[in-house]
Amino acid sequence: MDPTLVPGNSLVTATPEEGRQLAIKMARLIIKATQPDETVREKLRDVYANGASMLLQVGHIVALEFATIAAANRYWRT
Amino acid sequence: MDPTLVPGNSLVTATPEEGRQLAIKMARLIIKATQPDETVREKLRDVYANGASMLLQVGHIVALEFATIAAANRYWRT
Amino acid sequence: MDPTLVPGNSLVTATPEEGRQLAIKMARLIIKATQPDETVREKLRDVYANGASMLLQVGHIVALEFATIAAANRYWRT
Amino acid sequence: MDPTLVPGNSLVTATPEEGRQLAIKMARLIIKATQPDETVREKLRDVYANGASMLLQVGHIVALEFATIAAANRYWRT
Amino acid sequence: MDPTLVPGNSLVTATPEEGRQLAIKMARLIIKATQPDETVREKLRDVYANGASMLLQVGHIVALEFATIAAANRYWRT
Amino acid sequence: MDPTLVPGNSLVTATPEEGRQLAIKMARLIIKATQPDETVREKLRDVYANGASMLLQVGHIVALEFATIAAANRYWRT
Repeated sequence: MDPTLVPGNSLVTATPEEGRQLAIKMARLIIKATQPDETVREKLRDVYANGASMLLQVGHIVALEFATIAAANRYWRT
Repeated sequence: MDPTLVPGNSLVTATPEEGRQLAIKMARLIIKATQPDETVREKLRDVYANGASMLLQVGHIVALEFATIAAANRYWRT
Repeated sequence: MDPTLVPGNSLVTATPEEGRQLAIKMARLIIKATQPDETVREKLRDVYANGASMLLQVGHIVALEFATIAAANRYWRT
Repeated sequence: MDPTLVPGNSLVTATPEEGRQLAIKMARLIIKATQPDETVREKLRDVYANGASMLLQVGHIVALEFATIAAANRYWRT
Repeated sequence: MDPTLVPGNSLVTATPEEGRQLAIKMARLIIKATQPDETVREKLRDVYANGASMLLQVGHIVALEFATIAAANRYWRT
Repeated sequence: MDPTLVPGNSLVTATPEEGRQLAIKMARLIIKATQPDETVREKLRDVYANGASMLLQVGHIVALEFATIAAANRYWRT
Protein backbone atom coordinates (compact mmCIF):
# COMPACT_ATOMS: atom_id res chain seq x y z
CA MET A 1 0.00 0.00 0.00
CA ASP A 2 1.29 3.46 -0.87
CA PRO A 3 1.75 5.81 2.03
CA THR A 4 -0.98 8.44 2.07
CA LEU A 5 0.12 10.51 5.07
CA VAL A 6 3.90 10.77 4.65
CA PRO A 7 5.17 11.04 1.04
CA GLY A 8 8.06 8.60 0.63
CA ASN A 9 7.30 7.26 4.11
CA SER A 10 10.35 9.07 5.47
CA LEU A 11 11.11 12.30 7.31
CA VAL A 12 14.60 12.52 5.82
CA THR A 13 15.13 15.15 3.13
CA ALA A 14 18.24 16.42 1.37
CA THR A 15 17.82 20.07 2.29
CA PRO A 16 15.82 22.46 4.52
CA GLU A 17 13.90 23.62 1.43
CA GLU A 18 12.72 20.05 0.78
CA GLY A 19 12.00 19.66 4.48
CA ARG A 20 9.75 22.67 4.27
CA GLN A 21 7.96 21.24 1.23
CA LEU A 22 7.43 17.99 3.11
CA ALA A 23 5.99 19.92 6.07
CA ILE A 24 3.45 21.58 3.77
CA LYS A 25 2.50 18.23 2.22
CA MET A 26 2.15 16.44 5.52
CA ALA A 27 -0.08 19.19 6.86
CA ARG A 28 -2.27 18.96 3.75
CA LEU A 29 -2.53 15.18 3.91
CA ILE A 30 -4.00 15.33 7.42
CA ILE A 31 -6.66 17.72 6.15
CA LYS A 32 -7.30 15.30 3.31
CA ALA A 33 -7.62 12.34 5.68
CA THR A 34 -10.09 14.27 7.84
CA GLN A 35 -12.11 15.62 4.91
CA PRO A 36 -11.74 13.16 2.00
CA ASP A 37 -14.28 14.95 -0.20
CA GLU A 38 -12.26 16.83 -2.82
CA THR A 39 -15.12 19.25 -3.61
CA VAL A 40 -15.42 20.34 0.00
CA ARG A 41 -11.66 20.71 0.34
CA GLU A 42 -11.51 22.78 -2.85
CA LYS A 43 -13.98 25.23 -1.35
CA LEU A 44 -12.12 25.36 1.94
CA ARG A 45 -8.84 26.03 0.15
CA ASP A 46 -10.33 29.33 -0.91
CA VAL A 47 -11.17 30.13 2.67
CA TYR A 48 -7.62 29.36 3.81
CA ALA A 49 -5.99 31.43 1.10
CA ASN A 50 -8.12 34.52 1.65
CA GLY A 51 -8.60 34.80 5.37
CA ALA A 52 -5.83 36.50 7.29
CA SER A 53 -6.27 34.40 10.41
CA MET A 54 -6.61 31.21 8.34
CA LEU A 55 -3.33 31.84 6.56
CA LEU A 56 -1.65 32.33 9.90
CA GLN A 57 -3.12 29.07 11.18
CA VAL A 58 -1.67 27.31 8.12
CA GLY A 59 1.70 28.92 8.81
CA HIS A 60 1.48 27.80 12.42
CA ILE A 61 0.91 24.16 11.54
CA VAL A 62 3.68 24.11 8.94
CA ALA A 63 6.05 25.53 11.58
CA LEU A 64 5.17 22.63 13.89
CA GLU A 65 5.53 19.93 11.25
CA PHE A 66 8.82 21.46 10.15
CA ALA A 67 10.19 21.42 13.71
CA THR A 68 9.80 17.63 13.73
CA ILE A 69 11.25 17.19 10.23
CA ALA A 70 14.20 19.47 11.07
CA ALA A 71 14.99 17.43 14.19
CA ALA A 72 14.72 14.22 12.13
CA ASN A 73 17.37 15.63 9.78
CA ARG A 74 19.58 16.93 12.62
CA TYR A 75 18.87 20.36 11.16
CA TRP A 76 20.85 19.57 8.00
CA ARG A 77 24.03 20.64 9.79
CA THR A 78 26.95 19.97 7.49
CA MET B 1 -7.95 -4.14 30.50
CA ASP B 2 -7.49 -3.06 26.90
CA PRO B 3 -5.84 0.28 26.40
CA THR B 4 -8.37 2.89 25.31
CA LEU B 5 -6.12 5.89 24.83
CA VAL B 6 -3.02 4.46 23.11
CA PRO B 7 -3.68 1.63 20.61
CA GLY B 8 -1.20 -1.17 21.32
CA ASN B 9 -0.09 0.76 24.43
CA SER B 10 3.12 1.77 22.65
CA LEU B 11 4.45 4.79 20.80
CA VAL B 12 6.75 2.66 18.67
CA THR B 13 5.74 2.18 15.03
CA ALA B 14 7.52 0.63 12.07
CA THR B 15 7.35 3.66 9.81
CA PRO B 16 6.53 7.40 9.75
CA GLU B 17 3.29 6.58 7.93
CA GLU B 18 2.19 4.34 10.80
CA GLY B 19 3.37 6.98 13.25
CA ARG B 20 1.10 9.46 11.55
CA GLN B 21 -1.83 7.04 11.74
CA LEU B 22 -1.17 6.56 15.44
CA ALA B 23 -1.13 10.34 15.93
CA ILE B 24 -4.57 10.61 14.32
CA LYS B 25 -5.93 7.78 16.46
CA MET B 26 -4.51 9.15 19.70
CA ALA B 27 -6.00 12.57 18.99
CA ARG B 28 -9.41 10.96 18.33
CA LEU B 29 -9.29 8.84 21.48
CA ILE B 30 -8.89 11.94 23.67
CA ILE B 31 -12.00 13.42 22.06
CA LYS B 32 -13.78 10.12 22.72
CA ALA B 33 -12.70 10.11 26.38
CA THR B 34 -13.94 13.69 26.82
CA GLN B 35 -17.21 13.13 24.96
CA PRO B 36 -18.11 9.43 25.27
CA ASP B 37 -21.53 9.85 23.61
CA GLU B 38 -21.16 8.44 20.08
CA THR B 39 -24.20 10.36 18.76
CA VAL B 40 -22.78 13.70 19.85
CA ARG B 41 -19.36 12.84 18.44
CA GLU B 42 -20.89 11.81 15.14
CA LYS B 43 -22.50 15.23 14.81
CA LEU B 44 -19.28 17.00 15.78
CA ARG B 45 -17.33 15.00 13.19
CA ASP B 46 -19.37 16.80 10.57
CA VAL B 47 -18.43 20.13 12.06
CA TYR B 48 -14.75 19.23 12.03
CA ALA B 49 -14.76 18.02 8.46
CA ASN B 50 -16.56 21.03 7.04
CA GLY B 51 -15.22 24.00 8.90
CA ALA B 52 -11.98 25.46 7.59
CA SER B 53 -10.71 26.54 11.00
CA MET B 54 -11.80 23.22 12.54
CA LEU B 55 -9.83 21.23 10.02
CA LEU B 56 -6.78 23.32 10.77
CA GLN B 57 -7.25 22.72 14.50
CA VAL B 58 -7.32 18.97 13.80
CA GLY B 59 -4.16 19.30 11.74
CA HIS B 60 -2.54 21.25 14.55
CA ILE B 61 -3.21 18.57 17.16
CA VAL B 62 -2.04 15.75 14.90
CA ALA B 63 1.21 17.67 14.32
CA LEU B 64 1.75 17.85 18.08
CA GLU B 65 0.96 14.18 18.73
CA PHE B 66 3.21 13.21 15.83
CA ALA B 67 6.13 15.24 17.22
CA THR B 68 6.05 13.06 20.34
CA ILE B 69 5.65 9.82 18.39
CA ALA B 70 8.49 10.78 16.02
CA ALA B 71 10.82 11.47 18.96
CA ALA B 72 9.81 8.14 20.51
CA ASN B 73 10.89 6.42 17.30
CA ARG B 74 14.09 8.47 16.99
CA TYR B 75 12.55 9.77 13.77
CA TRP B 76 12.82 6.34 12.09
CA ARG B 77 16.36 7.18 11.06
CA THR B 78 17.89 4.16 9.43
CA MET C 1 0.07 17.78 52.20
CA ASP C 2 -1.31 15.71 49.36
CA PRO C 3 -0.31 16.83 45.89
CA THR C 4 -3.24 18.51 44.16
CA LEU C 5 -1.71 19.22 40.78
CA VAL C 6 0.26 16.05 39.94
CA PRO C 7 -1.33 12.77 41.12
CA GLY C 8 1.36 10.70 42.84
CA ASN C 9 3.70 13.71 42.55
CA SER C 10 5.58 11.95 39.72
CA LEU C 11 5.62 12.03 35.93
CA VAL C 12 6.75 8.41 35.71
CA THR C 13 4.15 5.89 34.56
CA ALA C 14 4.38 2.22 33.66
CA THR C 15 2.93 2.54 30.15
CA PRO C 16 1.95 5.10 27.48
CA GLU C 17 -1.72 4.41 28.31
CA GLU C 18 -1.15 5.45 31.91
CA GLY C 19 0.90 8.40 30.70
CA ARG C 20 -2.06 9.52 28.67
CA GLN C 21 -4.38 9.16 31.67
CA LEU C 22 -1.98 11.26 33.71
CA ALA C 23 -1.95 13.93 30.98
CA ILE C 24 -5.76 14.14 31.12
CA LYS C 25 -5.72 14.38 34.93
CA MET C 26 -3.00 17.03 35.02
CA ALA C 27 -4.87 19.15 32.48
CA ARG C 28 -8.06 18.86 34.59
CA LEU C 29 -6.29 19.77 37.82
CA ILE C 30 -5.10 23.07 36.37
CA ILE C 31 -8.69 23.92 35.44
CA LYS C 32 -9.70 22.96 38.99
CA ALA C 33 -6.99 25.19 40.50
CA THR C 34 -8.10 28.13 38.35
CA GLN C 35 -11.83 27.60 38.96
CA PRO C 36 -12.22 25.86 42.33
CA ASP C 37 -16.03 26.10 42.33
CA GLU C 38 -17.32 22.62 41.49
CA THR C 39 -20.73 23.89 40.35
CA VAL C 40 -19.19 26.23 37.80
CA ARG C 41 -16.82 23.52 36.57
CA GLU C 42 -19.70 21.09 36.21
CA LYS C 43 -21.47 23.52 33.90
CA LEU C 44 -18.32 24.17 31.90
CA ARG C 45 -17.71 20.44 31.47
CA ASP C 46 -20.90 20.38 29.44
CA VAL C 47 -19.59 23.15 27.24
CA TYR C 48 -16.32 21.30 26.66
CA ALA C 49 -17.99 18.04 25.81
CA ASN C 50 -20.44 19.49 23.32
CA GLY C 51 -18.57 22.17 21.46
CA ALA C 52 -16.47 21.02 18.53
CA SER C 53 -13.80 23.67 18.98
CA MET C 54 -13.76 23.12 22.76
CA LEU C 55 -13.13 19.41 22.37
CA LEU C 56 -10.25 20.18 20.06
CA GLN C 57 -8.81 22.62 22.58
CA VAL C 58 -8.97 19.86 25.21
CA GLY C 59 -7.22 17.49 22.81
CA HIS C 60 -4.58 20.12 22.16
CA ILE C 61 -3.73 20.57 25.84
CA VAL C 62 -3.61 16.83 26.51
CA ALA C 63 -1.18 16.47 23.57
CA LEU C 64 1.10 19.07 25.18
CA GLU C 65 0.98 17.55 28.67
CA PHE C 66 1.59 14.13 27.18
CA ALA C 67 4.68 15.34 25.30
CA THR C 68 6.27 16.26 28.63
CA ILE C 69 5.20 13.01 30.32
CA ALA C 70 6.46 10.94 27.38
CA ALA C 71 9.86 12.65 27.54
CA ALA C 72 9.96 12.04 31.30
CA ASN C 73 9.45 8.33 30.63
CA ARG C 74 11.97 8.27 27.77
CA TYR C 75 8.99 7.32 25.60
CA TRP C 76 8.63 3.94 27.34
CA ARG C 77 11.19 2.48 24.95
CA THR C 78 11.95 -1.07 26.02
CA MET D 1 16.06 43.81 43.36
CA ASP D 2 13.66 40.98 44.00
CA PRO D 3 12.78 38.89 40.97
CA THR D 4 9.28 39.69 39.77
CA LEU D 5 8.94 37.20 36.93
CA VAL D 6 10.47 33.99 38.31
CA PRO D 7 9.89 33.37 42.04
CA GLY D 8 13.20 32.39 43.62
CA ASN D 9 14.91 33.20 40.31
CA SER D 10 15.29 29.48 39.59
CA LEU D 11 13.49 26.81 37.56
CA VAL D 12 14.61 24.05 39.91
CA THR D 13 11.97 22.59 42.21
CA ALA D 14 11.98 19.62 44.56
CA THR D 15 8.99 17.82 43.02
CA PRO D 16 6.67 17.84 39.98
CA GLU D 17 3.92 19.27 42.19
CA GLU D 18 6.08 22.27 43.02
CA GLY D 19 7.09 22.52 39.38
CA ARG D 20 3.44 22.77 38.50
CA GLN D 21 2.90 25.50 41.10
CA LEU D 22 5.84 27.41 39.66
CA ALA D 23 4.36 27.09 36.16
CA ILE D 24 1.09 28.63 37.37
CA LYS D 25 2.94 31.47 39.12
CA MET D 26 5.18 32.22 36.14
CA ALA D 27 2.17 32.36 33.83
CA ARG D 28 0.43 34.79 36.22
CA LEU D 29 3.47 37.03 36.57
CA ILE D 30 3.60 37.61 32.82
CA ILE D 31 -0.05 38.72 32.91
CA LYS D 32 0.85 41.00 35.82
CA ALA D 33 3.80 42.50 33.92
CA THR D 34 1.58 43.16 30.89
CA GLN D 35 -1.33 44.55 32.91
CA PRO D 36 0.07 46.02 36.14
CA ASP D 37 -3.28 47.47 37.25
CA GLU D 38 -4.58 45.18 40.01
CA THR D 39 -8.18 46.34 39.60
CA VAL D 40 -8.24 45.43 35.91
CA ARG D 41 -6.58 42.06 36.60
CA GLU D 42 -9.10 41.31 39.34
CA LYS D 43 -11.93 41.80 36.85
CA LEU D 44 -10.19 39.67 34.22
CA ARG D 45 -9.61 36.87 36.73
CA ASP D 46 -13.38 36.48 36.83
CA VAL D 47 -13.47 36.18 33.07
CA TYR D 48 -10.76 33.51 33.09
CA ALA D 49 -12.42 31.47 35.78
CA ASN D 50 -15.86 31.45 34.22
CA GLY D 51 -15.30 31.13 30.50
CA ALA D 52 -14.80 27.62 29.18
CA SER D 53 -12.41 28.66 26.43
CA MET D 54 -10.52 30.99 28.78
CA LEU D 55 -9.92 28.21 31.28
CA LEU D 56 -8.56 26.05 28.49
CA GLN D 57 -6.26 28.86 27.37
CA VAL D 58 -4.94 29.07 30.95
CA GLY D 59 -4.41 25.30 30.97
CA HIS D 60 -2.60 25.55 27.66
CA ILE D 61 -0.11 28.13 28.91
CA VAL D 62 0.56 26.27 32.15
CA ALA D 63 1.29 23.13 30.10
CA LEU D 64 3.88 25.08 28.08
CA GLU D 65 5.56 26.67 31.12
CA PHE D 66 5.60 23.29 32.82
CA ALA D 67 7.30 21.62 29.85
CA THR D 68 10.24 24.02 30.30
CA ILE D 69 10.34 23.59 34.07
CA ALA D 70 10.16 19.79 33.76
CA ALA D 71 13.08 19.77 31.33
CA ALA D 72 15.03 22.05 33.70
CA ASN D 73 14.51 19.47 36.44
CA ARG D 74 15.32 16.51 34.18
CA TYR D 75 11.74 15.42 34.84
CA TRP D 76 12.51 14.73 38.52
CA ARG D 77 13.68 11.24 37.55
CA THR D 78 15.05 9.53 40.62
CA MET E 1 16.01 26.10 -8.92
CA ASP E 2 16.28 28.80 -6.26
CA PRO E 3 14.87 27.89 -2.89
CA THR E 4 11.55 29.63 -2.31
CA LEU E 5 10.77 28.49 1.21
CA VAL E 6 14.12 28.71 3.04
CA PRO E 7 16.38 31.63 1.97
CA GLY E 8 19.89 30.27 1.43
CA ASN E 9 18.49 26.77 1.90
CA SER E 10 20.06 26.59 5.36
CA LEU E 11 18.97 27.08 8.96
CA VAL E 12 22.45 28.14 10.03
CA THR E 13 22.94 31.84 10.78
CA ALA E 14 25.82 33.80 12.27
CA THR E 15 23.88 35.36 15.13
CA PRO E 16 20.54 35.20 17.00
CA GLU E 17 19.54 38.46 15.31
CA GLU E 18 19.97 36.86 11.89
CA GLY E 19 18.18 33.76 13.16
CA ARG E 20 15.25 35.92 14.10
CA GLN E 21 15.23 37.56 10.66
CA LEU E 22 15.24 34.11 9.07
CA ALA E 23 12.30 33.08 11.26
CA ILE E 24 10.29 36.08 10.03
CA LYS E 25 11.16 35.32 6.41
CA MET E 26 10.34 31.63 6.65
CA ALA E 27 6.97 32.42 8.22
CA ARG E 28 6.21 34.88 5.39
CA LEU E 29 7.25 32.44 2.67
CA ILE E 30 4.70 29.88 3.87
CA ILE E 31 1.98 32.51 3.63
CA LYS E 32 3.24 33.31 0.13
CA ALA E 33 3.16 29.64 -0.89
CA THR E 34 -0.41 29.30 0.38
CA GLN E 35 -1.63 32.57 -1.15
CA PRO E 36 0.55 33.32 -4.20
CA ASP E 37 -1.53 36.32 -5.28
CA GLU E 38 0.48 39.41 -4.32
CA THR E 39 -2.56 41.71 -4.39
CA VAL E 40 -4.46 39.56 -1.90
CA ARG E 41 -1.39 39.27 0.35
CA GLU E 42 -0.88 43.03 0.26
CA LYS E 43 -4.41 43.53 1.58
CA LEU E 44 -3.96 40.88 4.25
CA ARG E 45 -0.71 42.48 5.42
CA ASP E 46 -2.78 45.46 6.47
CA VAL E 47 -5.03 43.19 8.47
CA TYR E 48 -2.06 41.57 10.22
CA ALA E 49 -0.43 44.85 11.08
CA ASN E 50 -3.53 46.48 12.53
CA GLY E 51 -5.33 43.74 14.41
CA ALA E 52 -4.16 43.09 17.93
CA SER E 53 -4.90 39.38 17.83
CA MET E 54 -3.37 39.07 14.33
CA LEU E 55 -0.12 40.63 15.46
CA LEU E 56 0.03 38.18 18.33
CA GLN E 57 -0.58 35.28 15.94
CA VAL E 58 2.36 36.52 13.85
CA GLY E 59 4.51 36.73 16.98
CA HIS E 60 3.44 33.21 17.91
CA ILE E 61 4.52 31.70 14.60
CA VAL E 62 7.85 33.55 14.58
CA ALA E 63 8.53 32.18 18.09
CA LEU E 64 7.95 28.64 16.79
CA GLU E 65 10.10 29.04 13.69
CA PHE E 66 12.82 30.63 15.80
CA ALA E 67 12.82 27.71 18.27
CA THR E 68 13.78 25.39 15.40
CA ILE E 69 16.39 27.77 14.00
CA ALA E 70 17.91 28.31 17.46
CA ALA E 71 18.22 24.55 18.00
CA ALA E 72 19.80 24.22 14.54
CA ASN E 73 22.43 26.75 15.62
CA ARG E 74 22.94 25.18 19.05
CA TYR E 75 21.65 28.48 20.39
CA TRP E 76 24.74 30.35 19.18
CA ARG E 77 26.51 29.39 22.38
CA THR E 78 30.10 30.61 22.17
CA MET F 1 24.05 47.95 12.74
CA ASP F 2 22.46 47.54 16.15
CA PRO F 3 20.39 44.43 16.56
CA THR F 4 16.69 45.27 16.53
CA LEU F 5 15.19 41.84 17.15
CA VAL F 6 17.42 40.32 19.87
CA PRO F 7 18.75 42.79 22.48
CA GLY F 8 22.47 42.17 22.92
CA ASN F 9 22.30 39.73 20.00
CA SER F 10 22.54 36.80 22.41
CA LEU F 11 20.17 34.34 24.08
CA VAL F 12 22.45 33.93 27.07
CA THR F 13 21.35 35.57 30.32
CA ALA F 14 22.69 35.41 33.86
CA THR F 15 19.46 34.24 35.50
CA PRO F 16 15.96 32.90 34.72
CA GLU F 17 14.53 36.29 35.69
CA GLU F 18 16.64 37.98 33.01
CA GLY F 19 15.73 35.21 30.60
CA ARG F 20 12.09 35.99 31.20
CA GLN F 21 12.70 39.69 30.58
CA LEU F 22 14.45 38.83 27.34
CA ALA F 23 11.48 36.67 26.29
CA ILE F 24 9.12 39.60 26.83
CA LYS F 25 11.39 41.94 24.85
CA MET F 26 11.86 39.52 21.95
CA ALA F 27 8.11 39.00 21.69
CA ARG F 28 7.57 42.78 21.61
CA LEU F 29 10.25 43.37 18.99
CA ILE F 30 8.50 41.02 16.56
CA ILE F 31 5.31 43.01 17.00
CA LYS F 32 7.33 46.17 16.39
CA ALA F 33 8.88 44.73 13.22
CA THR F 34 5.44 43.74 11.92
CA GLN F 35 3.78 47.04 12.86
CA PRO F 36 6.46 49.76 12.88
CA ASP F 37 3.97 52.60 13.45
CA GLU F 38 4.32 53.58 17.11
CA THR F 39 0.89 55.25 17.23
CA VAL F 40 -0.87 52.09 16.07
CA ARG F 41 1.13 49.96 18.49
CA GLU F 42 0.31 52.28 21.35
CA LYS F 43 -3.40 51.79 20.69
CA LEU F 44 -3.01 48.03 20.40
CA ARG F 45 -1.10 47.90 23.70
CA ASP F 46 -4.33 49.03 25.34
CA VAL F 47 -6.19 46.19 23.67
CA TYR F 48 -3.63 43.64 24.86
CA ALA F 49 -3.64 44.89 28.43
CA ASN F 50 -7.41 44.94 28.81
CA GLY F 51 -8.69 41.91 26.97
CA ALA F 52 -8.66 38.65 28.88
CA SER F 53 -7.97 36.50 25.85
CA MET F 54 -5.34 38.96 24.56
CA LEU F 55 -3.42 38.82 27.82
CA LEU F 56 -3.44 35.04 27.64
CA GLN F 57 -2.14 35.18 24.06
CA VAL F 58 0.72 37.40 25.26
CA GLY F 59 1.44 34.93 28.06
CA HIS F 60 1.40 32.10 25.54
CA ILE F 61 4.00 33.70 23.29
CA VAL F 62 6.29 34.63 26.17
CA ALA F 63 6.15 30.99 27.34
CA LEU F 64 7.30 29.88 23.89
CA GLU F 65 10.12 32.42 23.62
CA PHE F 66 11.22 31.54 27.13
CA ALA F 67 11.38 27.82 26.33
CA THR F 68 14.00 28.59 23.67
CA ILE F 69 15.94 30.97 25.91
CA ALA F 70 15.88 28.48 28.80
CA ALA F 71 17.27 25.73 26.56
CA ALA F 72 19.95 28.15 25.32
CA ASN F 73 21.01 28.67 28.94
CA ARG F 74 20.83 24.98 29.83
CA TYR F 75 18.09 26.02 32.24
CA TRP F 76 20.57 27.94 34.43
CA ARG F 77 21.34 24.70 36.26
CA THR F 78 24.14 25.38 38.73
